[in-house]
Amino acid sequence: MSNSNKSQGTQAIILGIGDELLRGDYADLNSSLLARTLLQHGWTVLEIRVVPDDLHTLADAMADAGKRADLVISTGGLGPTDDDLTRHAAARAGGCELGFQEGAWQMVLDWYGKSDRTPPESNRRQALVPEGATPLHNPSGTAPGLRMELGRATLFCLPGPPREVGPMVELELKPWLGLHGPEGQFLHTSRVYLASLSESQFADEAGALLERHAHALVGVTAQAGRLAVTITARAATPEQAKGSAEAIQAQFLERFASHVYSTTEPTLEKVLGLKLIERGISVTVAESCTLGLVAAALGGVSGISKVLSETYCTYSNGAKTRRLGVDTAMLEQHGAVSEPVAQAMALGAAREASARLSVAITGLAGPDGGTEAKPVGLVCFACALDGQVVAVESKRFAPAGRAAIRAWATNRALHLLLLALGAPA
Amino acid sequence: MSNSNKSQGTQAIILGIGDELLRGDYADLNSSLLARTLLQHGWTVLEIRVVPDDLHTLADAMADAGKRADLVISTGGLGPTDDDLTRHAAARAGGCELGFQEGAWQMVLDWYGKSDRTPPESNRRQALVPEGATPLHNPSGTAPGLRMELGRATLFCLPGPPREVGPMVELELKPWLGLHGPEGQFLHTSRVYLASLSESQFADEAGALLERHAHALVGVTAQAGRLAVTITARAATPEQAKGSAEAIQAQFLERFASHVYSTTEPTLEKVLGLKLIERGISVTVAESCTLGLVAAALGGVSGISKVLSETYCTYSNGAKTRRLGVDTAMLEQHGAVSEPVAQAMALGAAREASARLSVAITGLAGPDGGTEAKPVGLVCFACALDGQVVAVESKRFAPAGRAAIRAWATNRALHLLLLALGAPA
Repeated sequence: MSNSNKSQGTQAIILGIGDELLRGDYADLNSSLLARTLLQHGWTVLEIRVVPDDLHTLADAMADAGKRADLVISTGGLGPTDDDLTRHAAARAGGCELGFQEGAWQMVLDWYGKSDRTPPESNRRQALVPEGATPLHNPSGTAPGLRMELGRATLFCLPGPPREVGPMVELELKPWLGLHGPEGQFLHTSRVYLASLSESQFADEAGALLERHAHALVGVTAQAGRLAVTITARAATPEQAKGSAEAIQAQFLERFASHVYSTTEPTLEKVLGLKLIERGISVTVAESCTLGLVAAALGGVSGISKVLSETYCTYSNGAKTRRLGVDTAMLEQHGAVSEPVAQAMALGAAREASARLSVAITGLAGPDGGTEAKPVGLVCFACALDGQVVAVESKRFAPAGRAAIRAWATNRALHLLLLALGAPA
Repeated sequence: MSNSNKSQGTQAIILGIGDELLRGDYADLNSSLLARTLLQHGWTVLEIRVVPDDLHTLADAMADAGKRADLVISTGGLGPTDDDLTRHAAARAGGCELGFQEGAWQMVLDWYGKSDRTPPESNRRQALVPEGATPLHNPSGTAPGLRMELGRATLFCLPGPPREVGPMVELELKPWLGLHGPEGQFLHTSRVYLASLSESQFADEAGALLERHAHALVGVTAQAGRLAVTITARAATPEQAKGSAEAIQAQFLERFASHVYSTTEPTLEKVLGLKLIERGISVTVAESCTLGLVAAALGGVSGISKVLSETYCTYSNGAKTRRLGVDTAMLEQHGAVSEPVAQAMALGAAREASARLSVAITGLAGPDGGTEAKPVGLVCFACALDGQVVAVESKRFAPAGRAAIRAWATNRALHLLLLALGAPA
């Protein structure tokens, strides 16, 4: 039965090596790249472990990983200096000798040869290879990688710099994964991207949906009102895995219909921008409290200039009147943070930019300026299409700080524009 | 001797919790923040370990860490959904009961109360606390943290979102570290923040400065032309550590004088914004390729509305002419991405907004639209003060993608505004 040995041969451990990671000089970007790559190939990552440049600790961590997993991938510690100990640790963990290898040395010579240089003496260290290990070509740096057997596992040792790891994942790791993937164990991941929803609202609504599925893993990550739901199903055939993941996905699509903005593209502004470009609908934005954030999100979409000519960042009342034609009497009567002003801003921006679609955002991002009637976190929105206001609303976001309120308001504004375009993704 | 027991009681293990980290959805940013914080307080991080949302594995990892370290800090798994298992694992690892605690529930109620809401039922899970543990106030989110004794260690459980972890590190972790730090081993950290410099330019210039210091650790992190240099010195007394760190800091300040924007505040736009507010200098921005990014950066500074009335996001040539008065003949002759147009945009924006200071950005962020004469990555800037152009330049950023080019251009524009104000920080 394929399920009975499902954990046979597809469990991986990732080791990040280097004092600089334990000092927090850098976030460990290599491990997330490796984790994504492994997931795509049907492997389960048991653990990511970051360990120091210490021979004993490193050899122990490798030997331990070699007992628990079928694949161990390390990054870092292959440089030419004395604190680069990965080769030595791999030899010690594998109980074998470390020796100078001509093949690995040739790789180092080739790297230097590309720019007509000869390697310094310290680089000879990079040609040390544990007995029986295969050196791996590194197209972007001096340090060759290594592949060897260790315990029940295969060990890959890759260099530390992320710009060297990326190409080696493509050239060395992925081909190996293609030949050593899980047998009779297939994974399929389906996704649902939601907007205008907090993680707790999602949890309340989704409760039963999250528990029901024995053969699927449902993960949720949240960011300022955007949620990414990942459904990973396992099955004995690719078709079954796909069917299982998509059946659960369909339940989420139904339950959260008005919040769904994509099943493939995580970036809300990209979904929106591409739809605007595809339909040739011109767009503009009038921003007060989000000053520039909605414009900047749209500006990140390649080709948006086809449908976007200009947007408005109007902080002061004077700018709202001068640029967007908001009536001064209205500003006095209702205040800048009000639904009538949001509507006037949306209509004024569309008129000024000759745009079919527009959104306006005016609110209190704080930390100062709130009152009992209009507290920090209150944001008014309006959306206009072809000269008509099609949505107007006030939201009261949690007072989680200026940056959080602006981020929430930005995502809500982008979602309102998308909703104004009709049918969900 | 104070040095003889320096590693007594100062060893820490960091646990990152969450399937999303093992899937590689995100890099583990919390762990690097925690590692930096611990280093600054004289602690040694033995290991960073990322583990899945699995009760058994999680409890084992916690119990194991509690045997090997004096301090264990976890992030993640405190949310309201069923895959949030940190509280349960901490109770199991500690061999104690998990119970609903009114104090923790009050924290959840307070969070919702701030915005006149009541928590959904699923949030009651966040008030579960292992027997004997102390709930920790989370000022930026629903989930209270936890602190409890576990084996020989103290265990801190913090939430997962980095924007919630940062404030809790300040409010809960640092005060605790201040009371439980190493004895007789003092650290002092000095910083230098630089703009308009790549990491390799920095490394080339700083070479000798980076190597010379035996008792200090110099770390550098780079982001789109901004660099944070951290100098951490160790010594037997606080005064010696401070003197040593500051002496090295002074060398960096001298070597990189024209790039330094602060020694205390990492955020360039905050340094700029506070200076503008303090001096009462009105400011505006005319953006083409950065569309909204410079405005959004300034808009993040509390109180900026005192000196900022409006800014301009002018993508099309028409908008540049209509909004900023850029001559159509000039646009035809030089093209939109040119120094004359940048100057006209900066002067026009200042005039329209009645602002004393302005910056304009016009460039090619790509991926399409480049030519041999004007390749993707070319960005023209101009800065005007009191009706005079005070800086004009063309930069050719590496074609590292639309987002990278826009981010570099944004930081350069902010730096030009700061330079226009005169004397460095």
